[in-house]
Amino acid sequence: MKHTIDINTDMGEGFGRYTVANDEKLLDIVSSVNIACGFHAGDPVIMNNTVKKAAQNQVAIGAHPGLADLIGFGRRKINVTMEEVTTNVLYQLGALSAFTKAHHTTLRHVSPHGQLGHYCVQDKNFAKAFMEAINSFDESIKIVALEGELAEEARRQGYTVVKQIFSDRAYNNDGTLVERSRVGSVITDFDEMVTRTIQMIKENTVKTIDGKIIKMEGDILCIHSDTANSDVLAEKLKAELVKNNISISPST
Amino acid sequence: MKHTIDINTDMGEGFGRYTVANDEKLLDIVSSVNIACGFHAGDPVIMNNTVKKAAQNQVAIGAHPGLADLIGFGRRKINVTMEEVTTNVLYQLGALSAFTKAHHTTLRHVSPHGQLGHYCVQDKNFAKAFMEAINSFDESIKIVALEGELAEEARRQGYTVVKQIFSDRAYNNDGTLVERSRVGSVITDFDEMVTRTIQMIKENTVKTIDGKIIKMEGDILCIHSDTANSDVLAEKLKAELVKNNISISPST
Amino acid sequence: MKHTIDINTDMGEGFGRYTVANDEKLLDIVSSVNIACGFHAGDPVIMNNTVKKAAQNQVAIGAHPGLADLIGFGRRKINVTMEEVTTNVLYQLGALSAFTKAHHTTLRHVSPHGQLGHYCVQDKNFAKAFMEAINSFDESIKIVALEGELAEEARRQGYTVVKQIFSDRAYNNDGTLVERSRVGSVITDFDEMVTRTIQMIKENTVKTIDGKIIKMEGDILCIHSDTANSDVLAEKLKAELVKNNISISPST
Amino acid sequence: MKHTIDINTDMGEGFGRYTVANDEKLLDIVSSVNIACGFHAGDPVIMNNTVKKAAQNQVAIGAHPGLADLIGFGRRKINVTMEEVTTNVLYQLGALSAFTKAHHTTLRHVSPHGQLGHYCVQDKNFAKAFMEAINSFDESIKIVALEGELAEEARRQGYTVVKQIFSDRAYNNDGTLVERSRVGSVITDFDEMVTRTIQMIKENTVKTIDGKIIKMEGDILCIHSDTANSDVLAEKLKAELVKNNISISPST
Repeated sequence: MKHTIDINTDMGEGFGRYTVANDEKLLDIVSSVNIACGFHAGDPVIMNNTVKKAAQNQVAIGAHPGLADLIGFGRRKINVTMEEVTTNVLYQLGALSAFTKAHHTTLRHVSPHGQLGHYCVQDKNFAKAFMEAINSFDESIKIVALEGELAEEARRQGYTVVKQIFSDRAYNNDGTLVERSRVGSVITDFDEMVTRTIQMIKENTVKTIDGKIIKMEGDILCIHSDTANSDVLAEKLKAELVKNNISISPST
Repeated sequence: MKHTIDINTDMGEGFGRYTVANDEKLLDIVSSVNIACGFHAGDPVIMNNTVKKAAQNQVAIGAHPGLADLIGFGRRKINVTMEEVTTNVLYQLGALSAFTKAHHTTLRHVSPHGQLGHYCVQDKNFAKAFMEAINSFDESIKIVALEGELAEEARRQGYTVVKQIFSDRAYNNDGTLVERSRVGSVITDFDEMVTRTIQMIKENTVKTIDGKIIKMEGDILCIHSDTANSDVLAEKLKAELVKNNISISPST
Repeated sequence: MKHTIDINTDMGEGFGRYTVANDEKLLDIVSSVNIACGFHAGDPVIMNNTVKKAAQNQVAIGAHPGLADLIGFGRRKINVTMEEVTTNVLYQLGALSAFTKAHHTTLRHVSPHGQLGHYCVQDKNFAKAFMEAINSFDESIKIVALEGELAEEARRQGYTVVKQIFSDRAYNNDGTLVERSRVGSVITDFDEMVTRTIQMIKENTVKTIDGKIIKMEGDILCIHSDTANSDVLAEKLKAELVKNNISISPST
Repeated sequence: MKHTIDINTDMGEGFGRYTVANDEKLLDIVSSVNIACGFHAGDPVIMNNTVKKAAQNQVAIGAHPGLADLIGFGRRKINVTMEEVTTNVLYQLGALSAFTKAHHTTLRHVSPHGQLGHYCVQDKNFAKAFMEAINSFDESIKIVALEGELAEEARRQGYTVVKQIFSDRAYNNDGTLVERSRVGSVITDFDEMVTRTIQMIKENTVKTIDGKIIKMEGDILCIHSDTANSDVLAEKLKAELVKNNISISPST
């Protein structure tokens, strides 16, 4: 039996002369990307270049809309209205889709960034406001989200929800991610990351932080692009997966 | 013989709590609008509300992309690269089109704002960079531009160029607008505005600043929304046109 | 006995070509102003012009720092850190003081804007972070604040807290302002505004929303500049006060 | 005879989570810095931290004001008015000085950034508008500028102009820097950089791109912080200078 995984990362999160990751190199490694749309990060030149190279590399493209908060990188709580959520997401989807159109490709998925993502997971109103934008824009787009309000709302409305797995994060017994503040929440040992990832892909199980083996399967493997040397780590991890007969490819 | 004119104005040029015109009322008067896309003015909430009401009123919608210059309202010269021109226009067209899609309408035309407009009229490279965005995005969109490099480039590429006439501006003998710095360049007497406008629409002529009668015809009549009481003036002008058996309607 | 009041308003809350009030005219009416510092509103050109004219008119100048939130006009909750509060206030105080220095005048007071103001009234940590900026910057500045955490912290540290009264707002029996959401919270009848204001200034009492007479005195009378025709209203109110032998002058 | 040089670099040019250099480490190496003030780069948190550590390290602090152009990093031509130049510089000087005040230190110098710097070197009106801000703000501040209109205007007005030398740039026979576009304009060989720098400091001469020996002396040695590994290079260069009995210290 042949195993396949879609390696996914956030991309295009620079602004003007600022950069946060080696996007150029990461685009040679991953099979899908979530592209920033100019609100928490990103600008038209970066978006265009990122979409262009992603299209050339046959990397699947998703939108990564965020709150309009460049100084806070979209990570701060802002009490936006539901009208702002819907219209800000619509705006960003539209903006990014102009570049996918220009490069003869399409938006495969959407994944809300940072605090917008947290709001959508935790709050039904945000999930609905987010999905209102999606409904208006493209009913065939896939939703990338952790389990929560957005995933539920999306499924209820007939959308495909793409399940994520993480190489470098510990899991609770119920399959949720261990809070970053807890010791052991982030896996830093490379060999352990590889072993866990292969187990999740091939056996669809993972050992939780409490030592229990639980079911854990996913369509895409999320790599954090904004950690130091994320490109080097991603490349090594990919090599290990390939060596273990796992092929890397967009999940659809 | 029945005469028709398309009354057009810039719209949605507020930002957050700021406004520059009585958009709500103007949308009851005009037959087409150029909507700001968030770079020189406008924001997602304003864009959504403007598109929504324009669609309800069957007002034709155009994009009004500008330089990324909120503090300068898109009126300052900035030595942007041609890559910035193309990608910034693409971004703005995409963003606005998400709202036309959401409200089940379309972008009929595009009209570059302020300094971006001036660059496109005067400089062949800007005209080409602008049209590169249009070509990538929507080959059926109409171009609203004064005579110059952009109009020429657009026609050369097979696009429809919409000709503008102005109620409140004096013309030179060659049909170009008299520079604003020259005395007499702006018509301020309402009755004169009405007379000139009717003459342009019905007889396709206008008296120049030098007293010569020249040919002057256009598809759309441009109203400046950002002058004081622009809505009151527009309403009165429209009433005079209607009284003179000119019907108001989008030019296509 | 001669009565005096300091008529105060927010000022310079435009941005680029945007304006929210007739600042030019208001500067001929009021005796003190709170000047926006470029974060929720305002820009260097506006700040310079406002300080210049205020200095010419011998209008007392205060800083009106806000959250860095132009699109939300500083009125949205943003979960800023205490480090952001202190440094953002310091930055804004410094910026404005460059203009008071240039025009040979000084900063008399500081009044936090919008949501920053609400945070400082309600939350001791914000009050402390705000006062840390003040302490670093100018120990002689006066604090304009409603009763609450900031006023308490300021007094505890030996600062003068300037007490505000409002012409157009109803009071609760404990002297706090009636929430805007409650019916009757805003006084809209001009004659009632005048009567109440004179009573507060001359008798230091006011009738609450429940009909009780309570003590109410203040150093400055706050006028809202961002309502329609605020300049006309302010002028009429001032005329009534002067007619009733109340002189208008900065409170120090 | 003892030789001394002031090693100087631009600093604090990040924004939010973005960074462009290892400021933390560079602050352990240099003897003076030009701190970005929030317009082309920098934000209040970064400014505060930079000033704090500079003060601790007894590194002399200068302001590095730029055009309000975050997306262009202050490097694009923008046709700002002279009013904008003066007020934008005043604003930035004031903002930064709030942090020097908070950390019990002072602004020693000012050095205009990027395109604002080019304008001030080339155009007398910009030089005057810039100096108008300086005059209003602090008559004792030193001006760091290449030879040109600003240096002349500053000297004419009685200001001290600090002369810069560059380790990594080739010189023309007239002492100006060779245009970056010309081959050989940037010195990339480390040993050559060291030799040239020592010669400029000890003998006050340098060999031009044409092989001529000319007089070249300066008060501060400028290090580019925004090149890759600028901190490593600066550290190595400093070590060589110290080894050659050159002491590193602020120029005043």
